[in-house]
Amino acid sequence: MAQKPSIPKGTRDFNPEEVAKRNYIFETIRSQFELYGFQPIETPSFENSETLMGKYGEEGDRLIFKILNSGDFLNKVDENAYINKDSNKITSSISEKALRYDLTVPFARYVVQHQNDIEFPFKRYQIQPVWRADRPQKGRFREFYQCDADVVGSKSLLQEVEFVQLYDAVFSALKLEGVTIKINNRKILAGIAEVIGAEDKLIDFTVALDKLDKIGEEKVKEEMLSKGIPQSGIEKLQPLFGLSGSFASQIEELKSILSSSEQGKTGIEELEFINNAITELGLQTATLQLDVTLARGLNYYTGAIFEVAAPKGVEMGSIGGGGRYDDLTGIFGLKDMSGVGISFGLDRIYLVLDALNLFPETVGNNVKALFLNFGEKEALVCLKAIKELRSRGIKTELYPDASTSKKQFIKQMNHANKRNIPNVILVGESELQSNTFTLKQMDSGEQQQLSLEQLIEKLQ
Amino acid sequence: MAQKPSIPKGTRDFNPEEVAKRNYIFETIRSQFELYGFQPIETPSFENSETLMGKYGEEGDRLIFKILNSGDFLNKVDENAYINKDSNKITSSISEKALRYDLTVPFARYVVQHQNDIEFPFKRYQIQPVWRADRPQKGRFREFYQCDADVVGSKSLLQEVEFVQLYDAVFSALKLEGVTIKINNRKILAGIAEVIGAEDKLIDFTVALDKLDKIGEEKVKEEMLSKGIPQSGIEKLQPLFGLSGSFASQIEELKSILSSSEQGKTGIEELEFINNAITELGLQTATLQLDVTLARGLNYYTGAIFEVAAPKGVEMGSIGGGGRYDDLTGIFGLKDMSGVGISFGLDRIYLVLDALNLFPETVGNNVKALFLNFGEKEALVCLKAIKELRSRGIKTELYPDASTSKKQFIKQMNHANKRNIPNVILVGESELQSNTFTLKQMDSGEQQQLSLEQLIEKLQ
Repeated sequence: MAQKPSIPKGTRDFNPEEVAKRNYIFETIRSQFELYGFQPIETPSFENSETLMGKYGEEGDRLIFKILNSGDFLNKVDENAYINKDSNKITSSISEKALRYDLTVPFARYVVQHQNDIEFPFKRYQIQPVWRADRPQKGRFREFYQCDADVVGSKSLLQEVEFVQLYDAVFSALKLEGVTIKINNRKILAGIAEVIGAEDKLIDFTVALDKLDKIGEEKVKEEMLSKGIPQSGIEKLQPLFGLSGSFASQIEELKSILSSSEQGKTGIEELEFINNAITELGLQTATLQLDVTLARGLNYYTGAIFEVAAPKGVEMGSIGGGGRYDDLTGIFGLKDMSGVGISFGLDRIYLVLDALNLFPETVGNNVKALFLNFGEKEALVCLKAIKELRSRGIKTELYPDASTSKKQFIKQMNHANKRNIPNVILVGESELQSNTFTLKQMDSGEQQQLSLEQLIEKLQ
Repeated sequence: MAQKPSIPKGTRDFNPEEVAKRNYIFETIRSQFELYGFQPIETPSFENSETLMGKYGEEGDRLIFKILNSGDFLNKVDENAYINKDSNKITSSISEKALRYDLTVPFARYVVQHQNDIEFPFKRYQIQPVWRADRPQKGRFREFYQCDADVVGSKSLLQEVEFVQLYDAVFSALKLEGVTIKINNRKILAGIAEVIGAEDKLIDFTVALDKLDKIGEEKVKEEMLSKGIPQSGIEKLQPLFGLSGSFASQIEELKSILSSSEQGKTGIEELEFINNAITELGLQTATLQLDVTLARGLNYYTGAIFEVAAPKGVEMGSIGGGGRYDDLTGIFGLKDMSGVGISFGLDRIYLVLDALNLFPETVGNNVKALFLNFGEKEALVCLKAIKELRSRGIKTELYPDASTSKKQFIKQMNHANKRNIPNVILVGESELQSNTFTLKQMDSGEQQQLSLEQLIEKLQ
């Protein structure tokens, strides 16, 4: 009967310490989201398959977890596909629901479905898990949380300005100083493609450019060439690869490169506006950096693109990203609804905070005192004191089983020790008689005999 | 291309107000759990199918949502089942994972899997969604949250005492006064079955008895008869149906009925111990009531059984339940690990609080002030003030699009109105010149011209 228990690959159990650390990050993000006026929504874990399928490309479709229909699901199966044993074709007839793949498409669906109840511009945040049937590897899981903030219903660039501030605010609140908020603009990428004569190959061009960090300049050029971008155009890119210096000086350089592209110029203007505002407002601990090689994989971005890099010296992919998309809700029939949003990568932020030892010591929010248990009568006296302590917000508990031997007493002490509970409280015969409590500090071993009032004061 | 968006039946979107109200309940429960020394864990949304299947009875197995294997899942299908189009038999060969059905079985799996890292007794809580392919109906959903607190590794009845206190603490903190915590003990039920000669029909007997509230005494007796419980035995039950009065007087009555059953007497002793301790300790707003007809559907309970009823006058099924189970981890190979736990029904508690108007007014935790937007220069001044306000924890935001006409100004005012934002702040030409802010209270219409310092003071 007994099974050796395990969990599916790519999923995780979280122990109390991990949950506490994760919640610390969630709560920090949540409280900054709310300070900035974002409101929470939640959507179901699974959506109708047609809501999700076809929104993430072919690869994405494959990585979506499908839920098997209940009951006699083969009853309605596609006959031809069944005879041919075509897994792909059968799927849609035996599965009508699928686990969400990200929070953006469900959000778009939500906005369209509830458009009459929503007051636009709508600033929403959403912190929920998503699921992907990806090959699990270090730092990549099949179930993981996304923390997204988006605004829909306004084209104002002030949103982009606020998102830069929001990134800075969250990472500063997490004491993760020195992150780099990289920014680019799809219109600049489009302008460059135009200038180098690769207008019709914008996707190939950006996909290749996006890999610059990983594979280097030469390999990027090779990939572009192989995708049919002319050698002459690639040569024109040369100044871009060497672009450096301040935000403003890079902007000047770009202006000369993109002088013949209207799109490119619009993109530059947008970046300038955002940078000027941020310069005026100042950032707490982050730096805003123009990165013209930043492309991001997703093809729905139409304006600003963001990506956040961990502080120098920490080896980690991006810990946040986002951008402006002009027509996300169009797929569900609501046109002209511009949106812009950012996302925080919980798992990577966790790893960075852990590596830099930035979790607050109090994050576990541990029990302050364990009452030892010497018997029924003593336990009841303890429970009365515990009731008073808890009513004052002091986390405390009673060891449930009575100690009747030295061995069991040691077991109770060990329990406090293993759980890092800083104090134990003893109520034995002498304490019963004198109506007192003996408080023992676990680290120093110091003992004090206290009245209930003194005990409350001590632990508060 | 455009699809009319919808969500799967039995699932829900939650708007900002609903999320805030749900979080209020979650946070209240969570903070009491932690005061009582429970520690949070989280487990994956899906488990290996063999972890879940066979743990909830045949009906339960059917209601578990199965996840289709990725890739060419028909490749490994059972040939015979495929030819016979046997949905039931095929399932296990095309689906290896399933969404969790409750939090108890995953918890048992967790305890066994991590037994070497856990310090027992282990007090854990878990607040996560579960999924059931139940027929959706009013108040019953296919995705819903469970909030569970359990202790494993101690047989001490003090745990039961603490769970009664915990129920009282949570509902008192929610200002939901007058709930009834019903308690019974499976050993008493077993004792009764013994006394009436239905020892071998304990399940049939308890299932029938459990329906007393719903179908009445006569129907319960009919059902027992139909299950083969002798008429003479059912007649012996008569005193039970009429059992009333105080906890203590019911206990006396039970003692005489069960005098010949060892099990029954043990059950009575346990209940007496719990009731005596609770009488000593007192409850804040709840009442502990012995309900000998309380059986609960689940068959793994072996000791105390709990169920919480909403205050009189509110039509609602139980808003919480739980009990002692002596061998939950046995299914995963870890014997002799006694556990006891309780659960809170989030959705029903929500409905009760809503019906009784018990959600705090501040639950939405709304934005305090909306800065109106009269143009680029003005907006930047606003953003500087907003930065100061936010750094002091004041939730505030800027309307993103500049108003250049009376119509757009009205639109901004309406936005504040529709979102219930209590203040708007105007920075126009005269405010720019005098370096001030005009604060307008939305309800009274009162206006004040303030310096930044005064504004901060006003909104803090």
